[in-house]
Amino acid sequence: MTFGSNDGSLKIEDESTTLPRNEIKTNGVLKSPNKNTSILHPDLVIRSKEEIPEPEALGLKEELPGWHGYVEWEQYPERKKKVQAFMKKFDFPGNYQVLNLNCLLMTRYQPPEFQLVPLPKTNPILEGVRWKQYHYALGKATKDMPAESWLFVEKEKSPDMIHVLQFPYNGEPPRGRLVETAITRNEDHFVRNHGGIPEIDEDAYFFDVAGLVNTPKRITMNELKNESLFPRQSTTVTIQCSGTRRIEQIREYPGDGDELINAPWAEGAIGTAKWTGVSLKKVIKYCGGLKDPSAAPHLEFLGADTYFKKGEVYNYAVSVPWRKVKINEVLLAWEMNGEPLPKIHGFPLRAVVFGYIGARSCKWLTRINVISGPSMGPVQQKEYLYYNSQVGKHNATYSSGFSIQDMPVSSAIMSPLDMDQIIHEGTIKLRGWAYSGGGHWPVRVEVSGDGGSIWYEVPYQKLTEKYYHAWRLWEIDLPVDAEGWLELVVRCWDNSLNTQPTFVRSTWNWDLHVTSSCHRIKVFSINKSRPNTAARLKKFEDLGIPFLPITHPGEDDLEDEEKYLSEMENRGGRDPLE
Amino acid sequence: MTFGSNDGSLKIEDESTTLPRNEIKTNGVLKSPNKNTSILHPDLVIRSKEEIPEPEALGLKEELPGWHGYVEWEQYPERKKKVQAFMKKFDFPGNYQVLNLNCLLMTRYQPPEFQLVPLPKTNPILEGVRWKQYHYALGKATKDMPAESWLFVEKEKSPDMIHVLQFPYNGEPPRGRLVETAITRNEDHFVRNHGGIPEIDEDAYFFDVAGLVNTPKRITMNELKNESLFPRQSTTVTIQCSGTRRIEQIREYPGDGDELINAPWAEGAIGTAKWTGVSLKKVIKYCGGLKDPSAAPHLEFLGADTYFKKGEVYNYAVSVPWRKVKINEVLLAWEMNGEPLPKIHGFPLRAVVFGYIGARSCKWLTRINVISGPSMGPVQQKEYLYYNSQVGKHNATYSSGFSIQDMPVSSAIMSPLDMDQIIHEGTIKLRGWAYSGGGHWPVRVEVSGDGGSIWYEVPYQKLTEKYYHAWRLWEIDLPVDAEGWLELVVRCWDNSLNTQPTFVRSTWNWDLHVTSSCHRIKVFSINKSRPNTAARLKKFEDLGIPFLPITHPGEDDLEDEEKYLSEMENRGGRDPLE
Repeated sequence: MTFGSNDGSLKIEDESTTLPRNEIKTNGVLKSPNKNTSILHPDLVIRSKEEIPEPEALGLKEELPGWHGYVEWEQYPERKKKVQAFMKKFDFPGNYQVLNLNCLLMTRYQPPEFQLVPLPKTNPILEGVRWKQYHYALGKATKDMPAESWLFVEKEKSPDMIHVLQFPYNGEPPRGRLVETAITRNEDHFVRNHGGIPEIDEDAYFFDVAGLVNTPKRITMNELKNESLFPRQSTTVTIQCSGTRRIEQIREYPGDGDELINAPWAEGAIGTAKWTGVSLKKVIKYCGGLKDPSAAPHLEFLGADTYFKKGEVYNYAVSVPWRKVKINEVLLAWEMNGEPLPKIHGFPLRAVVFGYIGARSCKWLTRINVISGPSMGPVQQKEYLYYNSQVGKHNATYSSGFSIQDMPVSSAIMSPLDMDQIIHEGTIKLRGWAYSGGGHWPVRVEVSGDGGSIWYEVPYQKLTEKYYHAWRLWEIDLPVDAEGWLELVVRCWDNSLNTQPTFVRSTWNWDLHVTSSCHRIKVFSINKSRPNTAARLKKFEDLGIPFLPITHPGEDDLEDEEKYLSEMENRGGRDPLE
Repeated sequence: MTFGSNDGSLKIEDESTTLPRNEIKTNGVLKSPNKNTSILHPDLVIRSKEEIPEPEALGLKEELPGWHGYVEWEQYPERKKKVQAFMKKFDFPGNYQVLNLNCLLMTRYQPPEFQLVPLPKTNPILEGVRWKQYHYALGKATKDMPAESWLFVEKEKSPDMIHVLQFPYNGEPPRGRLVETAITRNEDHFVRNHGGIPEIDEDAYFFDVAGLVNTPKRITMNELKNESLFPRQSTTVTIQCSGTRRIEQIREYPGDGDELINAPWAEGAIGTAKWTGVSLKKVIKYCGGLKDPSAAPHLEFLGADTYFKKGEVYNYAVSVPWRKVKINEVLLAWEMNGEPLPKIHGFPLRAVVFGYIGARSCKWLTRINVISGPSMGPVQQKEYLYYNSQVGKHNATYSSGFSIQDMPVSSAIMSPLDMDQIIHEGTIKLRGWAYSGGGHWPVRVEVSGDGGSIWYEVPYQKLTEKYYHAWRLWEIDLPVDAEGWLELVVRCWDNSLNTQPTFVRSTWNWDLHVTSSCHRIKVFSINKSRPNTAARLKKFEDLGIPFLPITHPGEDDLEDEEKYLSEMENRGGRDPLE
């Protein structure tokens, strides 16, 4: 029985007990995939022997000419229902599998995103097999999205990005480079996508303004860029994913491996750009203003990308309150650092919401709905919720998590790296970022070389300029006398005197969001201003053997017998006198 | 060029860039190895193109008939020197490799014991490739020891032992079973060997008493078992490796991966047996007593096993002070729980030193030397040292570590296991062990369900009997209301009011010894006495989907739209009133 395409194969569960996969990883370096094969994961498993209709019967197609990769869902409730029923026929990896014999088995191939196991050392770290299969299952309108989206990663992002999730694409730059410039280079800016990357012709592009506005309108890029209609705004804004530093929570306690694949972000899911476009407030004004501004409405953004949640299909949808728009803190942007938006960042037009979680800065904008409360789309209602530490799979509800909008004060040490072994002469240089959302800014950055007992303040000369909505980079030469494993820590104080929780444990939450606790790294200190250390290093040098890594055997003896015996005599031997 | 045996192959480094290995692991289950091939790791690498003499030229042979696997080193200094020079010709795995082009490369095959990487999930966890090659390199007198020793593991130990190091063999039993009986079954007792296992006929066996005694003697088993010469002693004694719980130190900060392979012990490197034999004090008396007891001499034990350190070769040698012997706390034992000593535990005769680190309880005893100070053998002088946390590869000396003899107060939770997800109704049953060395005994055991803030005392009815030299097992039903990830902790107080350091960090040391900090495990608590939790569990049951593991996707929605909206109304919505 074949399905979807000639190269795909569909297995009936009781005919096969293993689920072959196409291998796409090659020792940390990902080869450019053949878009029809390796990246697709076509090995779908169906639940029973019932007949599956060909996906073409769903009648899915691209919505508009010039909008490749855009399937409209929200306007077609019947289409969504049909797809929901269709999706139920498959067992996607990570599901439990219900056999027709009423016997329960876990699916046979478990991708690492759903297991209580250490993250793989590959790049991409996770593949997103489940989401690739969602797209594959629905046939030609969506099945090539994983492969096509990957081509934009290769074209638009730095070749050494850390791919935390291959599809939907999530990636961050290497740590050290991110803090070299206060404005992040576009190719190094982190990407957190929730689906495939649509390819939209600017000439064919428009977005709709609808709902509780006095004059609903369809607006083209030509109109939006017309400065006689809309004044332009350029603002330096840091965007941060609420998953930044999630890896610290994952390492301590596994959390939600539920429907949404939570990318294992490190400290690089944050970036700063000068965004240029039009304040959303001006666009609402152009549409005759709100019907009832006093009702505190919300503005819902819809994207052209396809989003899956609990077996249902959606367009990406999020919202922000009018109050945020009114103070010109929501921009509709087409330029990033003076260049057209890269496709992967939302070309031709995206929202940029200052000081909020990055998820609200909707890409590939198709529609702005003015609505009476927060969006009921799953990204707004069911995701990016911040739970009490006792909430988990056993009791989580959507209403009991609070919705992450403004981001809290946070910071990270980007150099040195965790587990570095550092030979120094009494000081270690630390570099990193500090940020606070919601219009707050970092006032003070402090570092500790002893796990958080004694704190050193970063001199103001070593902090980059202040912005209302951007990070500050910092560096400091930390006095370090001690040797061995040390815990280096950073914390930031913002202008509202907020600072960071002490430990990862203090803020652990089921969905693994907002790791804003003091950032801690372990480094091994080798202080060569100490004579014994200098002498030992010299000995390795003389032997022509590298000293690092510290876990490698040295071949020489640590102390000769004569020296040992004289030292032991000085110490009064091993035993007491009497 | 072949070397040693027909199936071994020796590679010249510039002819080959990869180092093939024989695969011995099969998905966590170890097949009985063919003793001539798979377990041996014969792929030696030599340093240069110089001619290597056949190992037979070393003239190594077994010392005595009936003593298979025993090569005497300490009586033949010239033999030791010759072997030391011979060993220098090889690059053993883990070494840096010095090419004849004066260019430095790390060896091409790096076993995991020398890398800053997570431990493998295999069983054996580590293979001990380097030590296998030491034995292989020396030719027929030692080359089969890894394979032969493994046969004793298979014969004498439980099939489900955790093999922390295959050779020299180090193994511990599964956690839960270890605390089922106050006396450990022989097949479950942990094993920490430092070399191969000699096979000695009891009829051919004797040991020598030499050095600063008035009448040096050679004593056979027949004499020792003669109750008219020596009164018998039976004592219940816990033996503990100073590496117990080392895995906690490894996980937090890597330490010495130096010449000695440090086995990644968990909480099972401890066991209790009733040992029967003769007090060493009686044997010394039989030899006419000490020449000068007031000089506080030490008693050195030599074993038949071969030990390697920094490219030199030894017989295993350790020592204890006379003071310890004088109070009848050193037993020469031939029975373990009423049975003859298993080969792997030292048959026919071993020392059992009460309350000390297990390393002093020398197996396969060949000689007892009365000497004026602690043994200068490498195990006593250069190993089992406890360093300040700032000491490491950069500055460690043997004299600056203190020599571990008496063991401190310690404890462990053996059930549940770390990362368990527990469905309960308000209490969780905890079981474990508590021990204190040096003649101290556990008086109180306390557990915490909140990381160490509130402590519950184990009721005395739930502690096993007190011994001067053995552990106590304990269990408690810990009240647990909270849900989510909790940190369960245990600590013990001994009769001297000593208790345990708080964190692993508090006691981390370069050689990763004596992990005596409060033992902490993470468990995920699911309290079904809470109505919301009970309802969610019921929902999974109704759907016929297992609830555990918690990281597996549930397919159902967490809250329906109606409930969500009414809950949000109760909460006053997401935004403030004004």
